[in-house]
Amino acid sequence: MTLNEKIGAAIDHQNSLVCIGLDTDPAKIPEPVRNSPDAVCEFNRIIIDATRDLAAAYKPNLAFYEALGRRGWEVLERTIRLIPDNVIKIGDAKRGDIGNTAAKYAGALFDLGFDAVTVNPYMGWDSIAPFVEAAGKGAFILCMTSNPSAAELQNLESGGRPLYQHVAEKITAWNKHDNCGLVAGATRPEILQDIRAIAPDLPFLIPGIGAQGGDLEKTVAYGTDAQGGMALINSSRGILYASAGKDFAGAARGKALELRDAINRYRVLKKKE
Amino acid sequence: MTLNEKIGAAIDHQNSLVCIGLDTDPAKIPEPVRNSPDAVCEFNRIIIDATRDLAAAYKPNLAFYEALGRRGWEVLERTIRLIPDNVIKIGDAKRGDIGNTAAKYAGALFDLGFDAVTVNPYMGWDSIAPFVEAAGKGAFILCMTSNPSAAELQNLESGGRPLYQHVAEKITAWNKHDNCGLVAGATRPEILQDIRAIAPDLPFLIPGIGAQGGDLEKTVAYGTDAQGGMALINSSRGILYASAGKDFAGAARGKALELRDAINRYRVLKKKE
Repeated sequence: MTLNEKIGAAIDHQNSLVCIGLDTDPAKIPEPVRNSPDAVCEFNRIIIDATRDLAAAYKPNLAFYEALGRRGWEVLERTIRLIPDNVIKIGDAKRGDIGNTAAKYAGALFDLGFDAVTVNPYMGWDSIAPFVEAAGKGAFILCMTSNPSAAELQNLESGGRPLYQHVAEKITAWNKHDNCGLVAGATRPEILQDIRAIAPDLPFLIPGIGAQGGDLEKTVAYGTDAQGGMALINSSRGILYASAGKDFAGAARGKALELRDAINRYRVLKKKE
Repeated sequence: MTLNEKIGAAIDHQNSLVCIGLDTDPAKIPEPVRNSPDAVCEFNRIIIDATRDLAAAYKPNLAFYEALGRRGWEVLERTIRLIPDNVIKIGDAKRGDIGNTAAKYAGALFDLGFDAVTVNPYMGWDSIAPFVEAAGKGAFILCMTSNPSAAELQNLESGGRPLYQHVAEKITAWNKHDNCGLVAGATRPEILQDIRAIAPDLPFLIPGIGAQGGDLEKTVAYGTDAQGGMALINSSRGILYASAGKDFAGAARGKALELRDAINRYRVLKKKE
């Protein structure tokens, strides 16, 4: 199965577009787990167990594991093993380097068990190739990001169109093996519409709702494909730290459920249009 | 001292623009060391010892350490400690993420002991800020890279000028604390001249000579500042794997010496002009 087929299957199987960002910060782990000797992995295990029927994907961001120092890689490795099989495992690494080096990154991250890795397009095709030439694996390539400074480069006009549109076109051209997706933020939802017009069928990984403030209804309307699918809408902090008390697992489940259901209601509205 | 002052001081102290890329691939470590239980660190120690008076900087690329899996971070940590104090330690990581995540990367990489980290500009200022707001530390920001596909995005024209020129301008604006440099490849040296015109005083990190084929004379002529300084010219494979035999340390030293001296001859020519 290609990555993009796996993504479609995970969305259907879970009836969910929710992606949970496992950006676990030791300082924010709720009290009941914080002092465990293996707190990050233990917290991740509880969050995954509490949400395993609600998420189509989990997405650890590598920065949070590198911040753990020597133990980080092992904690990440064990976290990935906790993610259910029928759910997509995305390594949010935003890597990008020359060919022989990109191949090292791709090997390291796919060996860890990720299905897909986020990749930066600035260096062009040869920095992307090693991530999309591995059978059954693939990449989500940054297109329009969710952060406040995103527009600084990504909106520069070239040939009358913003850079992110050129990038979206390149990604559709790079998608020779049905395993490229793109990252497009929810913080400027009208741009999702632009990008959907260029890449009607590609999976979108959409950060920026929740703590970053993106509008969910517009995100679903503009970011999903014509059938209301092929999008993974990420929430990290809003789910992980839903409660700082003993009820944190139930609170995380509650937030994930609420997000899944809200998204699914908007998907139904979209299909009715 | 600011990072850029440290770079100038290291270049003066060593009378060298050479940066040695510690991109150590276990499969390429010469026979005499390859089967040591701690081969990567041992090889790095021998290379650093053989070249410590010849290099202004060492630059481990993170991909090669991630490829080691669980042991990678520790090997990297010990490698950095082997680099002499008066020499610049560059983490070639090409990171770039939203602000709170970029801060995690910056913390992790600076804690390891790096003076500077390479960073990708695609996400704009807030993804760069955590790397340049740490006292005494800083960033080399990708501008025009050395790989074959570099031009794909980096040469897109906006307002009559290629994207890399816009990026070079942004980097000069981001350099509020005298701690930003830029990455500009040797594989298209005429572009170095363009970028030098925009950023006459910033340190340039220049990959692409050696295995990638960049022209050294033009690289020095166009890539250094008006005094023939403020550039770090990187060689990785050409030095590390200069010989596969018992003489590999001497051969690595020979290649580093040859590179340092060739660069210094071209620097003298430039000053005479």
